[in-house]
Amino acid sequence: MSDEKLNTERRDFLSKGAVLAASAGVAAVSVAPSVAVAKPASNVGPIEVKGYVKDPKNLKEVLTNAKKIMDTCAACDIAGPGRCNGKGPCGESTPGMGGKRRSFINNVEAFEKLHFNMSTVHNVKKPNTELELFGVKLSMPILTGVTGGLTYNMGAKGKLAYDGTEMTESKFVRGIVEGAYNAGTLGWAADGIGDPIETYRERLTVVKKFKGRALAQIKPRTQKEIFERIDAVQAAGAPFFAIDIDSAGRAARALPGKTVEPKDVKKLREIVKYAKIPFVAKGIMTPTEALMCVEAGCAGIVVSDHGGRVMSSTPASLDVLPGIVKAVRDSGSDMVILFDSGVRDGGDVLKALALGAQAVLVGRPFLRASLGGGAKGVEMMFKKMHTQLVSTMVLAGVADVKKVPADIIYKEA
Amino acid sequence: MSDEKLNTERRDFLSKGAVLAASAGVAAVSVAPSVAVAKPASNVGPIEVKGYVKDPKNLKEVLTNAKKIMDTCAACDIAGPGRCNGKGPCGESTPGMGGKRRSFINNVEAFEKLHFNMSTVHNVKKPNTELELFGVKLSMPILTGVTGGLTYNMGAKGKLAYDGTEMTESKFVRGIVEGAYNAGTLGWAADGIGDPIETYRERLTVVKKFKGRALAQIKPRTQKEIFERIDAVQAAGAPFFAIDIDSAGRAARALPGKTVEPKDVKKLREIVKYAKIPFVAKGIMTPTEALMCVEAGCAGIVVSDHGGRVMSSTPASLDVLPGIVKAVRDSGSDMVILFDSGVRDGGDVLKALALGAQAVLVGRPFLRASLGGGAKGVEMMFKKMHTQLVSTMVLAGVADVKKVPADIIYKEA
Amino acid sequence: MSDEKLNTERRDFLSKGAVLAASAGVAAVSVAPSVAVAKPASNVGPIEVKGYVKDPKNLKEVLTNAKKIMDTCAACDIAGPGRCNGKGPCGESTPGMGGKRRSFINNVEAFEKLHFNMSTVHNVKKPNTELELFGVKLSMPILTGVTGGLTYNMGAKGKLAYDGTEMTESKFVRGIVEGAYNAGTLGWAADGIGDPIETYRERLTVVKKFKGRALAQIKPRTQKEIFERIDAVQAAGAPFFAIDIDSAGRAARALPGKTVEPKDVKKLREIVKYAKIPFVAKGIMTPTEALMCVEAGCAGIVVSDHGGRVMSSTPASLDVLPGIVKAVRDSGSDMVILFDSGVRDGGDVLKALALGAQAVLVGRPFLRASLGGGAKGVEMMFKKMHTQLVSTMVLAGVADVKKVPADIIYKEA
Amino acid sequence: MSDEKLNTERRDFLSKGAVLAASAGVAAVSVAPSVAVAKPASNVGPIEVKGYVKDPKNLKEVLTNAKKIMDTCAACDIAGPGRCNGKGPCGESTPGMGGKRRSFINNVEAFEKLHFNMSTVHNVKKPNTELELFGVKLSMPILTGVTGGLTYNMGAKGKLAYDGTEMTESKFVRGIVEGAYNAGTLGWAADGIGDPIETYRERLTVVKKFKGRALAQIKPRTQKEIFERIDAVQAAGAPFFAIDIDSAGRAARALPGKTVEPKDVKKLREIVKYAKIPFVAKGIMTPTEALMCVEAGCAGIVVSDHGGRVMSSTPASLDVLPGIVKAVRDSGSDMVILFDSGVRDGGDVLKALALGAQAVLVGRPFLRASLGGGAKGVEMMFKKMHTQLVSTMVLAGVADVKKVPADIIYKEA
Repeated sequence: MSDEKLNTERRDFLSKGAVLAASAGVAAVSVAPSVAVAKPASNVGPIEVKGYVKDPKNLKEVLTNAKKIMDTCAACDIAGPGRCNGKGPCGESTPGMGGKRRSFINNVEAFEKLHFNMSTVHNVKKPNTELELFGVKLSMPILTGVTGGLTYNMGAKGKLAYDGTEMTESKFVRGIVEGAYNAGTLGWAADGIGDPIETYRERLTVVKKFKGRALAQIKPRTQKEIFERIDAVQAAGAPFFAIDIDSAGRAARALPGKTVEPKDVKKLREIVKYAKIPFVAKGIMTPTEALMCVEAGCAGIVVSDHGGRVMSSTPASLDVLPGIVKAVRDSGSDMVILFDSGVRDGGDVLKALALGAQAVLVGRPFLRASLGGGAKGVEMMFKKMHTQLVSTMVLAGVADVKKVPADIIYKEA
Repeated sequence: MSDEKLNTERRDFLSKGAVLAASAGVAAVSVAPSVAVAKPASNVGPIEVKGYVKDPKNLKEVLTNAKKIMDTCAACDIAGPGRCNGKGPCGESTPGMGGKRRSFINNVEAFEKLHFNMSTVHNVKKPNTELELFGVKLSMPILTGVTGGLTYNMGAKGKLAYDGTEMTESKFVRGIVEGAYNAGTLGWAADGIGDPIETYRERLTVVKKFKGRALAQIKPRTQKEIFERIDAVQAAGAPFFAIDIDSAGRAARALPGKTVEPKDVKKLREIVKYAKIPFVAKGIMTPTEALMCVEAGCAGIVVSDHGGRVMSSTPASLDVLPGIVKAVRDSGSDMVILFDSGVRDGGDVLKALALGAQAVLVGRPFLRASLGGGAKGVEMMFKKMHTQLVSTMVLAGVADVKKVPADIIYKEA
Repeated sequence: MSDEKLNTERRDFLSKGAVLAASAGVAAVSVAPSVAVAKPASNVGPIEVKGYVKDPKNLKEVLTNAKKIMDTCAACDIAGPGRCNGKGPCGESTPGMGGKRRSFINNVEAFEKLHFNMSTVHNVKKPNTELELFGVKLSMPILTGVTGGLTYNMGAKGKLAYDGTEMTESKFVRGIVEGAYNAGTLGWAADGIGDPIETYRERLTVVKKFKGRALAQIKPRTQKEIFERIDAVQAAGAPFFAIDIDSAGRAARALPGKTVEPKDVKKLREIVKYAKIPFVAKGIMTPTEALMCVEAGCAGIVVSDHGGRVMSSTPASLDVLPGIVKAVRDSGSDMVILFDSGVRDGGDVLKALALGAQAVLVGRPFLRASLGGGAKGVEMMFKKMHTQLVSTMVLAGVADVKKVPADIIYKEA
Repeated sequence: MSDEKLNTERRDFLSKGAVLAASAGVAAVSVAPSVAVAKPASNVGPIEVKGYVKDPKNLKEVLTNAKKIMDTCAACDIAGPGRCNGKGPCGESTPGMGGKRRSFINNVEAFEKLHFNMSTVHNVKKPNTELELFGVKLSMPILTGVTGGLTYNMGAKGKLAYDGTEMTESKFVRGIVEGAYNAGTLGWAADGIGDPIETYRERLTVVKKFKGRALAQIKPRTQKEIFERIDAVQAAGAPFFAIDIDSAGRAARALPGKTVEPKDVKKLREIVKYAKIPFVAKGIMTPTEALMCVEAGCAGIVVSDHGGRVMSSTPASLDVLPGIVKAVRDSGSDMVILFDSGVRDGGDVLKALALGAQAVLVGRPFLRASLGGGAKGVEMMFKKMHTQLVSTMVLAGVADVKKVPADIIYKEA
């Protein structure tokens, strides 16, 4: 932007949400166990949300519900094609958003700066969006993002949900995983720093239910703790798993059971060796570190800066993607490269693919869909993004998501 | 922009219009038959608009009326020289505006970034603005844009118009075509995706009335459907016609009678061959596709991204214009090159001409003029743009619109 | 910015002022005779302005008055160092501001983009700001801008002024000329397109009063009319005069007695030949035209785009200044080069000097000062700018306004 | 900014604060003796501030208090990671902010434009933040900024403070110095232009109290006056001292006892020679002047543009830092290079270190902390910045603040 202009109203809005943010600081990865916080604050039962649409019938109703139930996200332009760009009234109160919000904005702006060479003289009418990822067939190159602690972080805990019963973390995860399953793709169950192993196992029950078609992530804990959780993930039948090593910012303030840490090549290699399913390292932002993952034998990486939420000043994930793809492919490796951070619609998906990603993870839009409409909401959102992806492929003349030419992206003369 | 800053009020405004937009999605080309929707929702007669100026006497009154009658466009700075730039409160609710509005904004910003070498030491006092296009003499290098489905898309259906009777699509088209005729230039009647052939024929009656001095466009339907409509257009006496092949985004969701599709060179050639009047391909955004149109034998192209409304991320049409002009002229072709998307005033017209266009199409300003004042409104708007064009030509030292030097555009040192 | 973001409130504000602007169009140089309009609309006497400060004692009070008396300028940040940048609520309603306001904004932004190499290790304590211009000694390199038709254009006509009597054009001009005189520099009396020779002569009475220390400008009329007015200017004792040839935009709509036109080299040479005092051509924006002025024998030029008000898209005057200075000096000419358009404070003055101007003209700040406080107000504003200039010279290590090194301007590494 | 957009509300806000600013002008370094102004305007005792939190327990409460007690600073995003960027409602009313506020904004934007190469594949878990400066051991590379005249400039004079007694300048300084001491680092007592020697000595009592662990600055007065104050500073036991030579803007308006002036190499050398403790020249913005300080024998410099407050147009201090570091180190000098202007959080600190600074000074955040919570508030703010610094070091893979690699900063491909 050079510049982001904040007006007075927004500042007012922010001050309302500032209480939550005050205790969060820069490395705002929550350490509260997510099960506990799902309980209502008092024993008077769940709080009813005014204006809630029961059994939402379209995406607009789903997202209206999300807007109602969340305290800390304004769900900007909820029915539009996704104007959630960090410039709305979210500010510092957005859960887990680190630093000066610049990183989050960078991620979205990087997409806004890329344009397509619009193409209309060809015969691509019905593009193919199917692909295979670690042996799993997907209807489209879109997975949910790795999102957890939602009821707590979004202020939805203890409130009545779209289905007339209390919103809980389990219900949120179920929406994500089942909705992705129904859309023919994959959703993630997440590990929270403060979650004891029991909570994590509870979280994995939904992964188990959709055996082979649901995923799980693990925090960058001590090696021993990671191994214990890998066992659980494998038992739940996930086809692959990820560790978000970009959660390591709290390393210097590690507490027993809540330790996160960066992982050097040696430790990554131990994890690869221990696991019986493919291991994906999430949170890679430089070519050098991508090559270290190749060296460690990782099955894949997710180019991601944690949605711009762990460090105040990171370049846009999309901007570093091409350099990482080039470095990995030049090294002769065919390691899977996924992308995450800033994807808002189907057009964005095609951009990431044109820059070399094989598939993308999308967080905030699905998070809202699950909070506002559960599995049905998540499925509707997947369908919308699929329609956008197909329409964009037609106007870019792209026939297959597995072969997206780099030159569909416009280059200034 | 680098960045667009949206403030809270605008977001509020947007949410009001979100209902319409919700169903529109990315490829927002409407499929509703435009005749049907012109009827009032109930049988209580047309809705009266408060503050309407009857028989408007100047452009300001015309545009005040437009502002009143439209639900989905704020007609920003209606009396000024056209600050409609996609950064106002229009947002996603603007009819047919795809994606993240970035493309629409790009189009306008591209004009704002170009500046003239102001020139005062010369003797150009009364510049010539006349030219000939496909054998038709024009008073100025400005045509209306191809705009249709207006009463529906702009929320004007069933309302009382400037003349005291109900606003209808026919009335809108009449305003466009007659106003352009009276100004000594050409207006377009438009084809809507959902329009059956009967509706289209009804639309062409006005073209027939101004035989030889009115134009019509056809959607990129199946070849057979296109041929049927070419017959109709020729019967109406249009001197040339256009197909907006950039409407193809919905190709994968084609329904019987509502099919649109991209057109490869073979199909374009069939159309050229079938038609007895010149065929102009509208929606060309790359040099490669322009050359394919040359190869197919098209009489002309319109460099256009459909006003930035069909794809979320296209570069500014103005930015791709010079490359297209160079490619076509370097190939030895003298195919007519028209320009569309983002023109707001007479200064913009001169910029497009300096970059190689032979004439421009202007949509939104005339659309408002016809909704707010019919043929008289459209004529006033043409006169205003003509005055601006002449004044700008004097201060740029340009004597003739047929010979606009490229070097009137300022280049940074 | 690339982009300027306008919020809803501003658009609301603009709509209020839109009536005036509606009739102005692009080439907004007023043609109404400025004497006539100074009379109150009815015979009920001057309108009292609420909140007016009688006999203002400081600049803040002067500018508060200006804010009160003007209908069409918000006098943004009146007490601050001049944030009048075209991004406030002025919009199209600003009198005589052409096109899309981009040119006006460009002028101010060009200054904002230049920075000084701050310098503190030296011994410049009391810099010299005196210079000589066409034989006239000036206390500082700052003249007023050429501003006229003020009571009409600014909406001040028929209102009570700072001194308890009605505001008139004569009173405005007197404030400008006398205030500049008292500050040891020069102010301009202006010619309006619609002013008959009698009005112009009336305007020159104040120039006569400050014989030898007051200036006058002439519109680019027919040669015969210009000669007639040169006679008048010389009779009034002005040490030099200017013609603002950038007013030629209305050339194609010339009316008897209200003709303006561009001037080719031949005509400029005739004027040089006819005049007995130095002739300065105002409104030069390219090196080519500057060299044509050298060729015509002009004594000086003013690099100016008429404050960005006559053409919708001109580059910043400051941005073209260095190229013009280089071309003129490389040609061996020592023609005087003045600068105008966008200067807001003493720091801006030093920037223009560092880029090669010998002195600057400043419009809007003095215009407000005269409307709000007459000669005393104008003098206070000159003193403020002088203080700013001196302070900036100290921190840039510049000892003399006649020798301002180019390298005080910061260059990015 | 390309662009900074100011909306109407902000302008309204600004006008409220304009009275103070009106008299300040460009070189807004206050000349009022700061002791005198600490007294309440009338004899009715201190004014109670509504909504004040007594004995604040966390940073949010401290900063809420600061917001309450200050008239001229909105303390934007007080609980967040520091969005004080000059684009809020501060405007010209911010005490001592010169010119067009562009310099202040530049400083903050320069930090926002730099991004880190996020790094997660390594084993840095507990980075070291300790260092030694002129023989003093510091817990972190962060000192307070040199801030004085606070109760007057911030509008806090005569108001009840966080501890239930009247806010005074002495209380403010005590908070700064003691808070820094408790955090294991150093705070500054400041010299005001209008402060007589007695006031300055009074100010130094707090430096004396924390002997060897508190600092003092001197204005660039006459050499004789400087020597007198150096004696006082040395007697108070400060380990080193600074002169802010960038305060010289008022040189041309020097009054007896209130003279400030630039200092050439000869005068700097005299000061070096006179002082028995290390002398740091504050306000260096070019490589040339940094080398002059080396030549003069200065022990250190502070790269600083006085927070962007003394000159309207300076480049960002951060942008000139690398060139200065290179020039000094290439000359073979190991002169200490400190940095000041625009640092808002721990991430910013790491950026300045990556660009070659050895430690940074931070003004506004500590100023608010002391006004709102005294020594406890200042200590909390230091702890927060330390946590941010450590977290950022982990995610950048930096083990020690004394060895920060330049390549942790992201470079666009």
